[in-house]
Amino acid sequence: MADYSNEALDLHRRMKGKIHIELNDKLQSLDKLKLYYTPGVAAVSKAVALHKEKLREYTWTGNNVAVISDGSAVLGLGNIGPEGAMPVMEGKCLLFKHFANIDAVPIILNVHSANDIINTVKAIAPSFGGINLEDIAAPLCFEIEAKLAQQLPIPVFHDDQHGTAIVTLAGLINATKLTKRKLDACRVTIVGSGAAGVAIAKLLSLYAPGISIIMVDSKGIISNNRRDLNPSKQGLLAFTNKDNISGALIDALAGSDIFIGVSSPGLLTASMIKSMNNNPIIFAMANPEPEIDPDTAHRAGASIVATGRSDYPNQINNALVFPGVFRGALDNSVRHITDEHKLKAAEVVANLMDRPDYDHIVPSIGDVRLVPSIAKVIC
Amino acid sequence: MADYSNEALDLHRRMKGKIHIELNDKLQSLDKLKLYYTPGVAAVSKAVALHKEKLREYTWTGNNVAVISDGSAVLGLGNIGPEGAMPVMEGKCLLFKHFANIDAVPIILNVHSANDIINTVKAIAPSFGGINLEDIAAPLCFEIEAKLAQQLPIPVFHDDQHGTAIVTLAGLINATKLTKRKLDACRVTIVGSGAAGVAIAKLLSLYAPGISIIMVDSKGIISNNRRDLNPSKQGLLAFTNKDNISGALIDALAGSDIFIGVSSPGLLTASMIKSMNNNPIIFAMANPEPEIDPDTAHRAGASIVATGRSDYPNQINNALVFPGVFRGALDNSVRHITDEHKLKAAEVVANLMDRPDYDHIVPSIGDVRLVPSIAKVIC
Repeated sequence: MADYSNEALDLHRRMKGKIHIELNDKLQSLDKLKLYYTPGVAAVSKAVALHKEKLREYTWTGNNVAVISDGSAVLGLGNIGPEGAMPVMEGKCLLFKHFANIDAVPIILNVHSANDIINTVKAIAPSFGGINLEDIAAPLCFEIEAKLAQQLPIPVFHDDQHGTAIVTLAGLINATKLTKRKLDACRVTIVGSGAAGVAIAKLLSLYAPGISIIMVDSKGIISNNRRDLNPSKQGLLAFTNKDNISGALIDALAGSDIFIGVSSPGLLTASMIKSMNNNPIIFAMANPEPEIDPDTAHRAGASIVATGRSDYPNQINNALVFPGVFRGALDNSVRHITDEHKLKAAEVVANLMDRPDYDHIVPSIGDVRLVPSIAKVIC
Repeated sequence: MADYSNEALDLHRRMKGKIHIELNDKLQSLDKLKLYYTPGVAAVSKAVALHKEKLREYTWTGNNVAVISDGSAVLGLGNIGPEGAMPVMEGKCLLFKHFANIDAVPIILNVHSANDIINTVKAIAPSFGGINLEDIAAPLCFEIEAKLAQQLPIPVFHDDQHGTAIVTLAGLINATKLTKRKLDACRVTIVGSGAAGVAIAKLLSLYAPGISIIMVDSKGIISNNRRDLNPSKQGLLAFTNKDNISGALIDALAGSDIFIGVSSPGLLTASMIKSMNNNPIIFAMANPEPEIDPDTAHRAGASIVATGRSDYPNQINNALVFPGVFRGALDNSVRHITDEHKLKAAEVVANLMDRPDYDHIVPSIGDVRLVPSIAKVIC
């Protein structure tokens, strides 16, 4: 697998990061300062103080979003702290701008308890039109997102959960069609029971109530026999592992149709794939290194292989989804991203592929139809 | 006085605010995402997590600043709340970009106690290369700035205090020269004992230890006879009002050489100016409406009149100062803005006027020498 480390380091240093602030009006003459700043701006401040909803109309908050992380679960790197998270957050802001023309601001947090994160985000929330939570570790991320969504008057979206779940469901809709399966009758093994794994399991169950899901974490299959489960993992047992099987990843995979990895590099082996049902579907989405090399997976019999990377076919990356979700939320003044929105967004993404094939189960990240199509159903 | 309200409202609505995010690299091809985002960005995150000082090198934090307010003391408008403050904060960010090419991000806070503001700013501080506090009411602003400056590894500057004090001192250096006074022998009445008034009094006393300062607030002269003084105002008595006089503004002004207003519109009358020493210097800096109309002040005998406005001569606005202060702090990795920095900055601004005259005591806000000259002494 190609290593872009030196090239990436060099480019970041040369460009001094990825984003900057630009003026809407280039100020040919300083005369305009009397309108943009004192004394004219006082009239704008008075108008907004009196009618708070005008904030969106007179300031950049009509088109901006905060991308917020405490750096506790960054890419495949884990808990590397807020500073280490910044290059990823800035990258997210680049994607927001490039794909959806949204002004996203990276905010890294030097606090780590659910309470402190919630209070900080609530304190700065008036500055933004939406909140994109990013790379915050499970199970804290569930409480943080739920409370913020409840308490703030703007959309709050934890992309690692829902962006990933939406694009995974979109990919599976087409992958099951191609391999002549019904998702409702599939057996799915999901490895990784963090933010993404849990959200994927929930969204798949909503979309296909008959689906059989086995969740696996670093200790093995999540079952009633485990004594080490946190409340969020216990909650998974309400709709996964109905036969209450125990064991390791290999035990879950035997007889599975679909492998979904949101875990660690190299965790899936060729022999494990061989124990799955015929023509298995492999979504190896660990970032930046997938659970198995795609070529190895194909040689082991995988029918469709997807990863999170842009340099392999079938990139299952939440970047296909979050720009359109926020474009729609901002344009349509949506305060809550609901399950209904997520299901519709997944169907829209899947349906953009008129003729999906084994190497093209989802649109490419550069497909210009993505953002407007998703935005239309976030309303 | 001209009213720009409708024009300002219309322009803000039409431009959808004043700033937006732009990409450093326009991404002609999506191929670069493998460097800016996954997988390449992981190397950058790892490097920064390991050596936190590299954050400035690889991300936009090498050139960005947060402009933070809780909206408790906005322009001349008072405590209008965070939303009302946003148009002013965005205006400040416009000035940061236009004059110093600094990427400033407006952050408005929905919390108002000193503790909550301090904790919120500390939590988001790693996201920025500097913190510009703005429009936070006295006396809370003093505690907030002092604690943040002490606890954060980046420069913290409350512009309403120190930006205003620096440019006021700069103006007075030239105004006293023109009227053949020594600042050290002047009697100065300062009306307004909030953030700006207190900082001006402190900086003038540092620069000219022999100066005689009388502070006035909405209740009258600040003296030992007052029983209603908060600790910050009590502290002023250590170096102001040495004769302990009492009374109203008119009582302070009799025999004063200099009037400095950082208070409310229309508070200074022609007859008050007539009670001052000959050729008085009037700095009527209330925003957006000054304490007296400049023409009225001149007719009453004022020798030099300055305001905070761009549409009158002698604009004493902190916008002459803060862009250069932060440009210097960022470029020279300065962690604390000291009194020494402030005095040097004031002298630099005053000295830019080779031949100051009664209508030109400070450089115009568009003077391109301001930022580099100030930046050079913030080191």
